[in-house]
Amino acid sequence: MLEKTERLSLVEQVVTQIEQLIESGHWQIGDRLPAEMQLMKEFDVSRNTLREAIRALVHAGLLETKQGSGTVVKSSSAFGVALHRQVEKSSIMETLEVRLALEREAAQLAAMRRNEQDLEGMTESIELCKLASEKGDVQEFLKADINFHETMVKASHNRMLQGLYEHITEPLQSSIEEVMMADDYFNYNEEIHYELLEAIRDQNVQAAIDYVNHYINDFREKIKRIQEE
Amino acid sequence: MLEKTERLSLVEQVVTQIEQLIESGHWQIGDRLPAEMQLMKEFDVSRNTLREAIRALVHAGLLETKQGSGTVVKSSSAFGVALHRQVEKSSIMETLEVRLALEREAAQLAAMRRNEQDLEGMTESIELCKLASEKGDVQEFLKADINFHETMVKASHNRMLQGLYEHITEPLQSSIEEVMMADDYFNYNEEIHYELLEAIRDQNVQAAIDYVNHYINDFREKIKRIQEE
Repeated sequence: MLEKTERLSLVEQVVTQIEQLIESGHWQIGDRLPAEMQLMKEFDVSRNTLREAIRALVHAGLLETKQGSGTVVKSSSAFGVALHRQVEKSSIMETLEVRLALEREAAQLAAMRRNEQDLEGMTESIELCKLASEKGDVQEFLKADINFHETMVKASHNRMLQGLYEHITEPLQSSIEEVMMADDYFNYNEEIHYELLEAIRDQNVQAAIDYVNHYINDFREKIKRIQEE
Repeated sequence: MLEKTERLSLVEQVVTQIEQLIESGHWQIGDRLPAEMQLMKEFDVSRNTLREAIRALVHAGLLETKQGSGTVVKSSSAFGVALHRQVEKSSIMETLEVRLALEREAAQLAAMRRNEQDLEGMTESIELCKLASEKGDVQEFLKADINFHETMVKASHNRMLQGLYEHITEPLQSSIEEVMMADDYFNYNEEIHYELLEAIRDQNVQAAIDYVNHYINDFREKIKRIQEE
């Protein structure tokens, strides 16, 4: 019995070490883990302990075991995986409402806490949106647009808010794409983004909140229309 | 190789089945799982497969293996465990800001969507707060107070918002208790709760938002004061 408990806690230790290597970016998404023998030596554990740790991480969604190609990093955060699974169980409307809650709080905090680097990041994202729009590249535009919103949320200087926002936004991507395709939305008008940037630069909290309310309500109406069609 | 993959997916199947039994409430927190032999028969799997599934769930935080007393249900939701771990990595202020974001959105949606049952639930919670306050029972009061806020968030009729709110509020309990102990807060004035209830009953969205802003900012100031002392 005692041995079993000790082995279990060894498994947990290896799990935690691998998690940290992934979350710190030492092993990135798509990376293949070193050979079993090497890992056994590095962590100083038996083959059984190592395999059990890897299976726990496969279950947690961080690793993926592919036949023939070994074990590959699938996701960079256990929290992200758990949140994705929750989003999958929820409706688009429920998810959008949570996103609105987070983005509104973030805009308000960003207006209070933003620094020069935050403002530069937001300005750069707007430039990238403009470039992608001129090229007519929808995928690139979407990427730049998400980057704009994530940079704004980052300016809240609340990492928990930022983590929640990013992990909730990711699974919403396909809906966002659908809205943009169904709509003339791709006639990008950078003034809209500049409005939010200016509210945050001027530390105008109310204008920042109003902008987010307007932006998400608009988006919500578009999704409703698509769903009704 | 093929056999390994098959076995892995069997483990995953057992993991999913046990998860569902826990999340549906069939097995509740503190319950002991049936004997290994019985589970092997029920899930129609080998001892190794069963043990691997149980270990994956121990790692996920849903189960706990106690020496001598078998395997016990530790948490009812994998999402809850992941969120708790995230809260542990964050500061109280970061967590409070996320809670504010969720509660403000919930108050707004509750003012739009509440039904008679929601209003009754909130009224009952206020009565319980009053009773506990009269008895001078801090623990009971805290429970009733949390119940009031959770009932309000439930009235938003957004289950994702509700899940996030509850899992974030739980690890904040010790801080809330500290604030109440440090403060005259225990002189409970039910008018404060009735104000929010009335805003929601009257579908006065702005009053509901203002209430939450006021309530949480007040709480934030108190925590800041305690931290500075």
